[in-house]
Amino acid sequence: MFSPVYTGRVLEPAYRNWKALYARNLIAVHKAHLLGLVAQRIITEERGKRIAVAIEAMESDFSYPDAIPASVEDLYFVYERELGKRIGAEDAAFLHTARSRNDMDTTVFRMALRRALLGFQGEALGMLEALSARAHSGAEELTVLYTHGQPANVSTMGHYLSAFAGEVAEDLAALADAIGTVDRSTLGACAITGTGFPLDRRGVSDHLGFNGFIVNTYEAISTSHWLTRPAAAVEALMQDITRLVADLLHKASCEVGLVTFPDSLVQSSSIMPQKRNPVILEHARIQAGLASGYCAAVRELYRNVPYQDVNEAADAPVSELLKALEFASSAVSLVREIAENIGSDEVRVRTIATAFGVTTTELADTMVRETGIGFRSAHEVCSRFVASGNDPAALRKAFLEIAGTPLPYDDAGITAILEPVRFVAVRGLPGGPAPSGMVPVFEALDAAVAGLNSDLSGALARIDSAASALERDWQGLLP
Amino acid sequence: MFSPVYTGRVLEPAYRNWKALYARNLIAVHKAHLLGLVAQRIITEERGKRIAVAIEAMESDFSYPDAIPASVEDLYFVYERELGKRIGAEDAAFLHTARSRNDMDTTVFRMALRRALLGFQGEALGMLEALSARAHSGAEELTVLYTHGQPANVSTMGHYLSAFAGEVAEDLAALADAIGTVDRSTLGACAITGTGFPLDRRGVSDHLGFNGFIVNTYEAISTSHWLTRPAAAVEALMQDITRLVADLLHKASCEVGLVTFPDSLVQSSSIMPQKRNPVILEHARIQAGLASGYCAAVRELYRNVPYQDVNEAADAPVSELLKALEFASSAVSLVREIAENIGSDEVRVRTIATAFGVTTTELADTMVRETGIGFRSAHEVCSRFVASGNDPAALRKAFLEIAGTPLPYDDAGITAILEPVRFVAVRGLPGGPAPSGMVPVFEALDAAVAGLNSDLSGALARIDSAASALERDWQGLLP
Amino acid sequence: MFSPVYTGRVLEPAYRNWKALYARNLIAVHKAHLLGLVAQRIITEERGKRIAVAIEAMESDFSYPDAIPASVEDLYFVYERELGKRIGAEDAAFLHTARSRNDMDTTVFRMALRRALLGFQGEALGMLEALSARAHSGAEELTVLYTHGQPANVSTMGHYLSAFAGEVAEDLAALADAIGTVDRSTLGACAITGTGFPLDRRGVSDHLGFNGFIVNTYEAISTSHWLTRPAAAVEALMQDITRLVADLLHKASCEVGLVTFPDSLVQSSSIMPQKRNPVILEHARIQAGLASGYCAAVRELYRNVPYQDVNEAADAPVSELLKALEFASSAVSLVREIAENIGSDEVRVRTIATAFGVTTTELADTMVRETGIGFRSAHEVCSRFVASGNDPAALRKAFLEIAGTPLPYDDAGITAILEPVRFVAVRGLPGGPAPSGMVPVFEALDAAVAGLNSDLSGALARIDSAASALERDWQGLLP
Amino acid sequence: MFSPVYTGRVLEPAYRNWKALYARNLIAVHKAHLLGLVAQRIITEERGKRIAVAIEAMESDFSYPDAIPASVEDLYFVYERELGKRIGAEDAAFLHTARSRNDMDTTVFRMALRRALLGFQGEALGMLEALSARAHSGAEELTVLYTHGQPANVSTMGHYLSAFAGEVAEDLAALADAIGTVDRSTLGACAITGTGFPLDRRGVSDHLGFNGFIVNTYEAISTSHWLTRPAAAVEALMQDITRLVADLLHKASCEVGLVTFPDSLVQSSSIMPQKRNPVILEHARIQAGLASGYCAAVRELYRNVPYQDVNEAADAPVSELLKALEFASSAVSLVREIAENIGSDEVRVRTIATAFGVTTTELADTMVRETGIGFRSAHEVCSRFVASGNDPAALRKAFLEIAGTPLPYDDAGITAILEPVRFVAVRGLPGGPAPSGMVPVFEALDAAVAGLNSDLSGALARIDSAASALERDWQGLLP
Repeated sequence: MFSPVYTGRVLEPAYRNWKALYARNLIAVHKAHLLGLVAQRIITEERGKRIAVAIEAMESDFSYPDAIPASVEDLYFVYERELGKRIGAEDAAFLHTARSRNDMDTTVFRMALRRALLGFQGEALGMLEALSARAHSGAEELTVLYTHGQPANVSTMGHYLSAFAGEVAEDLAALADAIGTVDRSTLGACAITGTGFPLDRRGVSDHLGFNGFIVNTYEAISTSHWLTRPAAAVEALMQDITRLVADLLHKASCEVGLVTFPDSLVQSSSIMPQKRNPVILEHARIQAGLASGYCAAVRELYRNVPYQDVNEAADAPVSELLKALEFASSAVSLVREIAENIGSDEVRVRTIATAFGVTTTELADTMVRETGIGFRSAHEVCSRFVASGNDPAALRKAFLEIAGTPLPYDDAGITAILEPVRFVAVRGLPGGPAPSGMVPVFEALDAAVAGLNSDLSGALARIDSAASALERDWQGLLP
Repeated sequence: MFSPVYTGRVLEPAYRNWKALYARNLIAVHKAHLLGLVAQRIITEERGKRIAVAIEAMESDFSYPDAIPASVEDLYFVYERELGKRIGAEDAAFLHTARSRNDMDTTVFRMALRRALLGFQGEALGMLEALSARAHSGAEELTVLYTHGQPANVSTMGHYLSAFAGEVAEDLAALADAIGTVDRSTLGACAITGTGFPLDRRGVSDHLGFNGFIVNTYEAISTSHWLTRPAAAVEALMQDITRLVADLLHKASCEVGLVTFPDSLVQSSSIMPQKRNPVILEHARIQAGLASGYCAAVRELYRNVPYQDVNEAADAPVSELLKALEFASSAVSLVREIAENIGSDEVRVRTIATAFGVTTTELADTMVRETGIGFRSAHEVCSRFVASGNDPAALRKAFLEIAGTPLPYDDAGITAILEPVRFVAVRGLPGGPAPSGMVPVFEALDAAVAGLNSDLSGALARIDSAASALERDWQGLLP
Repeated sequence: MFSPVYTGRVLEPAYRNWKALYARNLIAVHKAHLLGLVAQRIITEERGKRIAVAIEAMESDFSYPDAIPASVEDLYFVYERELGKRIGAEDAAFLHTARSRNDMDTTVFRMALRRALLGFQGEALGMLEALSARAHSGAEELTVLYTHGQPANVSTMGHYLSAFAGEVAEDLAALADAIGTVDRSTLGACAITGTGFPLDRRGVSDHLGFNGFIVNTYEAISTSHWLTRPAAAVEALMQDITRLVADLLHKASCEVGLVTFPDSLVQSSSIMPQKRNPVILEHARIQAGLASGYCAAVRELYRNVPYQDVNEAADAPVSELLKALEFASSAVSLVREIAENIGSDEVRVRTIATAFGVTTTELADTMVRETGIGFRSAHEVCSRFVASGNDPAALRKAFLEIAGTPLPYDDAGITAILEPVRFVAVRGLPGGPAPSGMVPVFEALDAAVAGLNSDLSGALARIDSAASALERDWQGLLP
Repeated sequence: MFSPVYTGRVLEPAYRNWKALYARNLIAVHKAHLLGLVAQRIITEERGKRIAVAIEAMESDFSYPDAIPASVEDLYFVYERELGKRIGAEDAAFLHTARSRNDMDTTVFRMALRRALLGFQGEALGMLEALSARAHSGAEELTVLYTHGQPANVSTMGHYLSAFAGEVAEDLAALADAIGTVDRSTLGACAITGTGFPLDRRGVSDHLGFNGFIVNTYEAISTSHWLTRPAAAVEALMQDITRLVADLLHKASCEVGLVTFPDSLVQSSSIMPQKRNPVILEHARIQAGLASGYCAAVRELYRNVPYQDVNEAADAPVSELLKALEFASSAVSLVREIAENIGSDEVRVRTIATAFGVTTTELADTMVRETGIGFRSAHEVCSRFVASGNDPAALRKAFLEIAGTPLPYDDAGITAILEPVRFVAVRGLPGGPAPSGMVPVFEALDAAVAGLNSDLSGALARIDSAASALERDWQGLLP
């Protein structure tokens, strides 16, 4: 009999987590394993059918007790005990032939985590699609972009948001890769060295919809990668989100005002109607921060923990990683909401561009390209222009003095060169904000989104189809 | 003139880092960029040659001053100033046409980081090969493997070390993927939106041996992935190393004694010759821990930092990541040394296996397979055997009572079933320690090692060949 | 109307947390604030009584709706709206005079966090007392202590456990200090700059049992210390726990066997009765690891977050810190259970001491002290003794050769010198394991425990007594 | 002979660190220990003098070799070997009587770390004094303070900076407390259980200027607190700095412009003279981030490391913590520079206050206080005023409608109420920005600074005076 403290602090919470999060997958594992035992003639078909009938019956008429019964270690033993009551303990024990709680549990956890991760991947893809859609629709929508917190260049919402979407696409490819680490069966590894029974490891893995099984049986049980790798991948995405949010908080501040949000995302003050506080940004930062911190908490559990079967690869950390995914899910939902609702303000773009001479760089570049003077001279000419408060006469005077010839632009010409739209239009090299520059950006982004969607659909279809096959074969085993 | 504090705390350390770590790559970037400017007719060939001649001359007769000169911001301006002294400031400035310190610097950093990461990948691959070789040579060398700190199963050194090698192979594939993020040029992104000059971004990227260039110019400058992704990948490998080390510390402890080390890796006590302290394990743990912590420190810098060009993507963090790689390099060198020198002790395997009944599981399994009794009964029989102090007579008596028939094994048969070698031999399912079980393990491991080696060689060859092409074209530009 | 996503991901979870964790403290804050407004004549006594009567009535007949009502931002507005229904919106609004949600909320959070932290401090003190009691009872119970994983010296359970208890005492003093940061009112800070109304900040703070109030109103709202400092203090304690656990896992491993646990804390195997797995140690490590990681997650939220009022100092992080305390509470409960149940095995002490020559150091020291030979010579003599397999004749021969005189000990004398009990007995300098050495250790430990208990009782008594005074004064306000 | 890899990766770097960072303190430890051995008659005075003379001679004529000699483990053995050459190995070994490398090394490390931490504490106090001085001088200098990134209240630079100074003072008190953990001798603990020789632990501790010694000898060697606690304290300060910097980056952005910096701290663009980039803020963020991350890296090393003597409490982590302090030192120097040079812009205060109605809150409060209408009504009146574009006629009309009486303020009266100076002036409750509110703020801050200075001076004086006493007694031992 375990001590009340141990029961209350360890066994009971684990039992509750199992009931809530893992019990359904346990049944699938029972079915696949039993089918395998029968197919490999490790147990007789007759015994297999007896067990299968009892499992099927328990599905409809058995409920786990609310609290863990005394003297039982975990939910599985509650199940086995009930099975034993129905078909005798000896037969019930045969279900566990060539299986240990080690491989059974980690496969169950992997199934639950895989489902949660694929769900999250879907939500994150939704965010990415929203960012991408907003980038497409904002391909000609002017904005100002900053370096080191200072206005630097005019660009477009499309250029800006597709840059971040590119980061997200990279994060989600890495997440898909990490999910691949989760998506592998451990059944057949038994405790750590497999078994002498002739299991069909691949067949069982296929029945459960896995992408494969971890071959080395010791690695299958001892590895932390199925927890640490997705944790790290989610963490990376969350950290990127905090960067976008920090930038948007600046762009949305009332003094800058380059981006806008509808009332449905803004908290206002009862006394100051002009105060429009897009607190959704702060909350996205917090949810992303919590998700990131919790993923790190799970990852760090393994530091200096022996490369063995340890309880770090058991219920508590898995359940906590599932909670981290809930925060991550909130964060991506909020960012998606932001992407779907963010507006821009061209008036503010022009005001800031003028006030801070954002397009003056292009005036210098244009003079170099068109008049043949050097950069140094062009910059000196432009400096004097800015110092004059953007007086065209001063510009012409400076050019004449430095270049020795008159500036070949009239006032309208100067204004045209400084026009924000033109600043964007000339930047047509690959990756620049002009339409021709954005072609390869959007092509790559669209391809990445399509690829991610296809991979995700493929994984989900594989799992669904395996579930159908499992159920069909299971029905075949039932008398 | 910058304040002395700012100079002393920021500019001077950055200047020193540049001299030590990045100055060589800066020259390569100058060459590739200048060749591109000439090829695209952005500057005349004549002016290009003038600049090239001066660059070539500076290579042989220019040294950077020890300390950063007053009123200069960084090493690049020191270079440009010297260039200006030689060919006039106006011509010197043309080298910087259609380029900003943003894209120039991040490309330079990426080249330095790429080289360091590929070097580290090579060292880590050396460790993996040593682990794999030791696993191969230990395919029949018995050991005991543990769960939750307790002896659980007999297995082989080959099974054990190939499990960990599998983890490392997975880590190194992820690292290679992350290095791919680093291995991309940013040139042409200029400040953040590119330029109106018709640069050939791909041509310059190819000249510098990159695997491609980051298309979106804002993403090219703002992304943290080239620092955070390799940091995370190295961190993951380091964390795995701490797990192996924790396990080996237990196996090497004098009470366990399953693994042994030669004198060259052991610190002994002058007074206690029997005390043999394999402190190399502790030091591997510490170096891995520091590397891991420093990678995390670099990663965490970006939290809540605006998605813009920021100094977090500049000299200080890059230089610190290079230092983290030095610790990581120590850690993998120490683990390689461990892999190349670790021995095992079959006497201890047998002693522990007997003392803790490690093979009794197999006795029960064998009875189930061969006599047809159930697991529950077999376990009960074995429990009584163990309780008797492994007395064959007690085993037979228990079997007779529970199974109702005599046990079909004589004393020698029982001993044979309990023999550690047999415990391993029957575990021939895929991934088990028996030779047939290890076939797919070694196949996968060998393939992974070969693939990693081939990818690494490919990357190094691409970079070498680009360097040759750059130098050839550069010589073509020189008069 | 907020968007459904924002409501579902932010407002609704916050509302649920408020109902579960903070609503009771909100009432206390209403009472203290209202009493203050009346006492300072900021509102009339008559209006104060009207509001008080309604608050009192709501205590018995109002329940918050299950879900947050549409178009309401938070739980407080639900409360105010109900209050308005009862006494009119104008009067209801007077309750909020000279108050903002900023100071109201952070005071409410601080009250909830203070209660949880003091509760945790009590549990951790219980663990410390158990460790201390076990150290006292084990003052003469032999054990072997290790360095770098190797047996090094004989000592006592008392010496060992009091060392760790000393660490815990230091951690809990730091935690008490950190709780002091939480235990301060922010009321009167209003949004961030206080108010023009003549509040009595100290009086309100006293009514709520705080140890003081944060004077600077901007600091009161912007500070993170009330979250980050206790988080760091708990984290430090948790990290120490992981170290004790790692050491005990080694001492409890079956090959070492220096410490033992009763069946109630051990998970056994159905087939291997000799396998006794004290998994409580692993679970303590995991709970401590999760607590530590979650505390870090909360701390790290503030990195690069503007020094302003931010939502990081609001419901979500506070609620998560409360969850981290639950894991921490599990960890200290498990360690307390360990301390109360850990046994030792003197037979193993003697076996290990002999097998690994643990007391030989003392033989050398004794020869130096008693025979006048130097350390170098004594060590050489002892080395030969050990090499001989502890043969007294070899020892005498070596001594004669090296020291030039006969060794003044007969066989019994040598055995006596090597006796583990004597090894401990001679180590009577302050802090050594002999009884005289332990006197100052236990004095300091007992004093620390007494001081921590007294501080904790004092804080709890202050809070209780303030609650009584608040209730008394509140009844005085009611008609 | 150690393996070349072990030597190159572990022994050699440790030897270099010892030479650079610890060798001087080793001599002090030799002196104090030798004096103690003689005073306690553990070795004869004659032998003590022989050793002392050799030590004294080596101070003037011995240099450590550049690289660690083959077959030597560490710097101490190089020293002892040289000592042995001079006075014979037997006498040389007597210096190490009743001492182990464990207690010797950790005491040496603690001395080096103590010196570095007290130096850092001094620099951080310099930063605090600069912040405090700037707060004092800015007591009437208007600024706007923000909540959630939006302008919220008018206040003063004094109010703002003293709030942050209050946080720093709290951090430095915690750091002083943590330094107390470092400032304790471990000598006499020997390996882990002390010794049978009658050492005077307190006397030796006093000679080395420690504030005391760690009594329990096992705790003295095994504890991590002398590394983890200062690391955590520095980390907390660094995190706070990132918050101030994030806020200042917003206030210094060109669109906000509330704070200003002199040219000596601003990086400008050659082409945009109006672009003034206070990159010192970004660099302070990075240095603080690196310092914080490196402190965390050192702290995290101990997770799951056995509570024993481990190499984590040896040269590598200590040396890395010293490097973390260098980054921390840069961060506080930069913040001090910021504090000493930051300016404000009252024009921007008034512009922002007007544009965003920052003082309107006070208009409502004033109406409540002076006209007797309720908050709800007052807010409604003010809302209409703001909606009208701050038209006094609209205000009067709304007041008449809602309150039923004319508003008792003429246009000048309204302007006076909305005046930023008045907004501050009425906030005179304790902790508010008005002069009377700031009195207790400055009193507490000045007292904290004085207390911190006094504690620091006291510690430095104690150490100096101990050094003098040690040298005096040492000269007394020399013949």
